[in-house]
Amino acid sequence: MTRWLRTGATLLFGAGIGASVSRLLSVRGRAEEEETPGTLSGLLNRVPVVPVPRVQASELTVSPGGSGAVMKYGFPSLANIKTRESYVTSYDPRTRTASWVIERLNPASLNGPSDRKYCNFKEDDSVHVFHRSTNADFRGSGFDRGHLAAAANHKWSQKAMEDTFYLSNVAPQNPHLNRNTWNHLEQLSRSLTKRYLNVYVCTGPLYLPRQEADGKLYVRYQVLGQNHVAVPTHFFKVLILEQVDGRGVELRSYVLPNEPIDEKVPLDHFLVPIETIERASGLQFVPNIMKRTSSLQAITAR
Amino acid sequence: MTRWLRTGATLLFGAGIGASVSRLLSVRGRAEEEETPGTLSGLLNRVPVVPVPRVQASELTVSPGGSGAVMKYGFPSLANIKTRESYVTSYDPRTRTASWVIERLNPASLNGPSDRKYCNFKEDDSVHVFHRSTNADFRGSGFDRGHLAAAANHKWSQKAMEDTFYLSNVAPQNPHLNRNTWNHLEQLSRSLTKRYLNVYVCTGPLYLPRQEADGKLYVRYQVLGQNHVAVPTHFFKVLILEQVDGRGVELRSYVLPNEPIDEKVPLDHFLVPIETIERASGLQFVPNIMKRTSSLQAITAR
Repeated sequence: MTRWLRTGATLLFGAGIGASVSRLLSVRGRAEEEETPGTLSGLLNRVPVVPVPRVQASELTVSPGGSGAVMKYGFPSLANIKTRESYVTSYDPRTRTASWVIERLNPASLNGPSDRKYCNFKEDDSVHVFHRSTNADFRGSGFDRGHLAAAANHKWSQKAMEDTFYLSNVAPQNPHLNRNTWNHLEQLSRSLTKRYLNVYVCTGPLYLPRQEADGKLYVRYQVLGQNHVAVPTHFFKVLILEQVDGRGVELRSYVLPNEPIDEKVPLDHFLVPIETIERASGLQFVPNIMKRTSSLQAITAR
Repeated sequence: MTRWLRTGATLLFGAGIGASVSRLLSVRGRAEEEETPGTLSGLLNRVPVVPVPRVQASELTVSPGGSGAVMKYGFPSLANIKTRESYVTSYDPRTRTASWVIERLNPASLNGPSDRKYCNFKEDDSVHVFHRSTNADFRGSGFDRGHLAAAANHKWSQKAMEDTFYLSNVAPQNPHLNRNTWNHLEQLSRSLTKRYLNVYVCTGPLYLPRQEADGKLYVRYQVLGQNHVAVPTHFFKVLILEQVDGRGVELRSYVLPNEPIDEKVPLDHFLVPIETIERASGLQFVPNIMKRTSSLQAITAR
């Protein structure tokens, strides 16, 4: 547990993520006494598999007010998984951005003839017009259209690169962050392909709470344009690194605030325990990864 | 279009939903010129069916950085549909509340031997412990544990009533609202079973933006307890009313602010066009309903 807490604490002093992450970390206190420094083994013992619903759709019977009957007019939402040439994503129609985007990087994907100058940001017409962001929403907002799956990760095919320009793969991002520290993190992801068999990159927005003057915690974020595109307070990037010798998987997970970051702050200062991202995002990474490997090492210390 | 706008405008003066709904309504301006007053027919002509992803999972091929390959370690989220005795729900693990809960009410579901005194609010252990609310999160918060599917809707079975006490069917709700105007809306839902074949009730939280002093729009909501349970700014309730003679379906959709409401304000003042809820929630109702009926009348005027 020592190393995890140290990481969190350093991060607090490092770069202004502030009270929100501190609070997230404090939540973890419950049952971490047996944590093994630098690994997730202690954590994993406590992560239950998420149960499936007790009743399967095929077993439903109709009773008064019963669950089978309420489906008559359909569900107002289902999973919003989209499969693209260069990534898979889950779309959040309420915030008008992705919940997460996953890519796989390796030397083959990083090289090729694709040219960014032929790419233009475009609406994602697979998203209902009520829940879609447009280029107009960003115009004059002061925010960049920040790629979640980065264009430069997909030089292997023009189509793959073009697919990263769907606005569903974009979130409003501070321009200084986008062009500096965030860009460096994307470069790091690519450079790690030299040392690992594959680099799986999962990126997404966070909406972290912050303590206000009344002592209570509030989530507060701007929304842009006519379609109310949410401006994340932070971004996460999780790197799942496959070791060349097949011995296992390493994990690096970052949280960066959506604001200018002094370039002198090293990227390692934004490393957080994966649990911080899992709690804040509503997502799960570790149980999925553990289905594929028995050796997972979390790199959260410098 | 006249009636829709009138509804929105009245609502603004009526009960403090304020700038957020006003802005939501203004978004609708684009293509509404041909709206038929009091019906959704004009709207429906413009609602496209949401396309499925271009590539099906079974067709995926593995190429460098390709979409098939990125699934190796699984997706960090999928749909979170839960089927209970008395309702079906979609859970939002980020806010620690449901996105929506659907029930079907009719005279048979409203009568029975169930007794609320044997029911206690309980954690939903089908939700990962990272993403689950607990009773402790609500303690001393000043908010009620507000049922989304109401207990009194499910007297037909003790189990059905008990299932409404899962905290995944609960959102933090202003106590005055919960015990007065919201309660009246639940009573209205039940009383409508006398006039309709079935009353389908879909309830959920909203997080609506509001204009702040800098002229920009922000979503801001409190989070409660160690698990950061989101306090919705508003609640929606959509009533899908099946006509007894089988001629069609009527729709009533309400948005109430999560704050005390003067009891003298009639419930009809909170009627909004369904599109307002569809835009704000990221959900869709009308396309699903139209798969089951060709006659849909939206009741948005008083």
